[in-house]
Amino acid sequence: MTDLTTPDDCTAKQTLHPLEFVVEHLIRSANAISKTNRLALNDALNATLSQDVSSTINVPPADNSAVDGYALKREDWLEGKPLLVSQRIPAGSVASSLEAGTVARIFTGASIPQGADCVVMQENTKVLVNERVIILQRPTLHDNIRPLGQDIKQGNTLLKKGQSLSPQRLGLAASIGLSHISTICSPRVAILSTGDELIEPGQPCNPGKIYNSNRYLLNGLLQSLGMEVIDLGVIEDKLDSTVQALEKASACADVILTTGGASVGEEDYIQCAIKQLGSIDFWRVAIKPGKPFMFGRVGETPVLGLPGNPGAVFVTFLMLARPFLLSMQGCSEIKVSPYSMPLGFDIRNPGKRREFLRVRIDANGVLQRHPNQSSGMLSSTSWAEGLAVIHEHSQPQAGDMVDYFPLTSLINKPSS
Amino acid sequence: MTDLTTPDDCTAKQTLHPLEFVVEHLIRSANAISKTNRLALNDALNATLSQDVSSTINVPPADNSAVDGYALKREDWLEGKPLLVSQRIPAGSVASSLEAGTVARIFTGASIPQGADCVVMQENTKVLVNERVIILQRPTLHDNIRPLGQDIKQGNTLLKKGQSLSPQRLGLAASIGLSHISTICSPRVAILSTGDELIEPGQPCNPGKIYNSNRYLLNGLLQSLGMEVIDLGVIEDKLDSTVQALEKASACADVILTTGGASVGEEDYIQCAIKQLGSIDFWRVAIKPGKPFMFGRVGETPVLGLPGNPGAVFVTFLMLARPFLLSMQGCSEIKVSPYSMPLGFDIRNPGKRREFLRVRIDANGVLQRHPNQSSGMLSSTSWAEGLAVIHEHSQPQAGDMVDYFPLTSLINKPSS
Repeated sequence: MTDLTTPDDCTAKQTLHPLEFVVEHLIRSANAISKTNRLALNDALNATLSQDVSSTINVPPADNSAVDGYALKREDWLEGKPLLVSQRIPAGSVASSLEAGTVARIFTGASIPQGADCVVMQENTKVLVNERVIILQRPTLHDNIRPLGQDIKQGNTLLKKGQSLSPQRLGLAASIGLSHISTICSPRVAILSTGDELIEPGQPCNPGKIYNSNRYLLNGLLQSLGMEVIDLGVIEDKLDSTVQALEKASACADVILTTGGASVGEEDYIQCAIKQLGSIDFWRVAIKPGKPFMFGRVGETPVLGLPGNPGAVFVTFLMLARPFLLSMQGCSEIKVSPYSMPLGFDIRNPGKRREFLRVRIDANGVLQRHPNQSSGMLSSTSWAEGLAVIHEHSQPQAGDMVDYFPLTSLINKPSS
Repeated sequence: MTDLTTPDDCTAKQTLHPLEFVVEHLIRSANAISKTNRLALNDALNATLSQDVSSTINVPPADNSAVDGYALKREDWLEGKPLLVSQRIPAGSVASSLEAGTVARIFTGASIPQGADCVVMQENTKVLVNERVIILQRPTLHDNIRPLGQDIKQGNTLLKKGQSLSPQRLGLAASIGLSHISTICSPRVAILSTGDELIEPGQPCNPGKIYNSNRYLLNGLLQSLGMEVIDLGVIEDKLDSTVQALEKASACADVILTTGGASVGEEDYIQCAIKQLGSIDFWRVAIKPGKPFMFGRVGETPVLGLPGNPGAVFVTFLMLARPFLLSMQGCSEIKVSPYSMPLGFDIRNPGKRREFLRVRIDANGVLQRHPNQSSGMLSSTSWAEGLAVIHEHSQPQAGDMVDYFPLTSLINKPSS
């Protein structure tokens, strides 16, 4: 890595890396999982397609009626002339050719008989005795006919490798007759927490201790992206325990996420351990919260070292780990576009790091921030509807438009 | 239902009901599931809380250090004066009271010792031999101390009954020591397709037939909301088959969703069957696509009759079935707020129904519609990023602001 600074020793000071640079580097460094899995459609929600999907058929496969009514050849119509109803075509049945000079009773979805070129809605007809009907208005050519291939044309590429299978795309795959679909296996993501102060929920919280929330936060975030989670618990704040835990994680997972201990303090062992087992690409990113974010490798296994504070875990997961993990998942739809929204408050001082504020949209459509933006706060992330972006060296004031990411777009896979 | 028209017979013409009126009626008619389920946090993603959650502890439970550095009593500081380091407090350990006139070596997350009232970052110190340190800058009271209860105060209500458990909320529950959480059981939703033209994917598609896509579309949409799906397949287009299928569905499900056959044609049996087994509240809603939407009951079991066209299934599910189903799930966060976005095209004619256009946001931040908005189109719903709302009797032009719903917000549960 000539373009990134790497610590010379475990306590080296580092420059801050700009966010775009880091995200690009992460995406470039992520190798998509090569293993694929053929899934039944009902089991494939939010999975990533491993190949393009083309249609071998037209949808609809034949011209069909958009209404309940009568199919006829337009030139057979004459004002007031009773026409014989020569056949009845419910949806799903096979139509015979239309007898010349007659009409066919037809229902929504049913195939248009050979020889007919329009359908008249039943509302515009008068039914007589003796199987005859008068068409009350002059029909228009192709009226109420859904043409063959209107939705999907045979041979067209419908879905692309790397797309995520939303409900609509599952429906689309079904509509061309696919019962199963080939998907990319999700990365196995090992999560490790560090911090001797951490106690698991359900246990008594002794003095000096605090409950481990990052483990459950990360588990939920990973589940939302369809990742396979391997939860390896808490590592003791010791170098040899950290080395052992990372070795174990690299043996069973495609990628490792750690929380805490990624900095270079006397009690932070993640970087030293990774240097023993592999290499560090960079740490420290110019975002707030989330500065002490580290990226390295244990052998061939990538390691994302997230900060220990839950607010910072949340932001670095969404802004840094998410694009990396989706790239490993083979997902082509990684970028989330922000909305432009008016700020409801003034930024006092421009910062050196890009700040992600936990905000809600108020009744006037204006962004309001949580009063406490400390990186240690989890309650503000649960309160927020989205993240407002305050660019480095900028100082937007109330009423100024800023970038806004709704959490639903960041937490979930794309829903196109 | 005195405020809603009900068909007198199975082929009665009906007035169109305005969308807001229908949504309100649906939400009012939905009885939340009373059964609850205590789930481990890692199994509770997107479940609905069955009761408020209050904290029995403060988070953090004690004042703790935000940095690696030295804890001291501010008044013990004198410029250039070496201070004895009388203890070392790693995170997770129990601090002794601070000896008067000394400092404690302290690490991020560790408890502040009794007697200290500030922490100085190690960057602002000079370490001497003999366990002594000089603090280079005058410390500020409470500096770098995260106070007890900063994130969560003991006794505060953190989470409310009816909220959906996002990753952040799971983390928040963990942070107050909960390993399990009480959630509302999801409704069991039976899905039934109607239409003799329907063939299942994987089967050959004979003349007159078309692949069943609604079944897979609905399955995905229901899974995305965390519903329990009971897939009862396709009903034959016959009254007795429809009656039998609805009876079976009402016996095993909390709510029934049907697609197709909800209109009043000769080949549409859903309404007649429901009238035999229960009652119809209304059908026909003033939206496009999705006009023939029906709501009724089989015995006590609510039935939502969706149209047969997949584009209309998609829109009626998101706009009508979604609020009903989330209400049954006990979810309090039902309303999705639209964004205001500029239209990239002109609406030619004002309509009588509220139209939901399948759109994308282009590179200029402007909404562009799919060229084919036919309700039969599934490809346009897979292409869309969101729905643009064209209000009844309105005719917005290019550049005008309209309501826009991103699909991620409509398809997924809320992510606050």
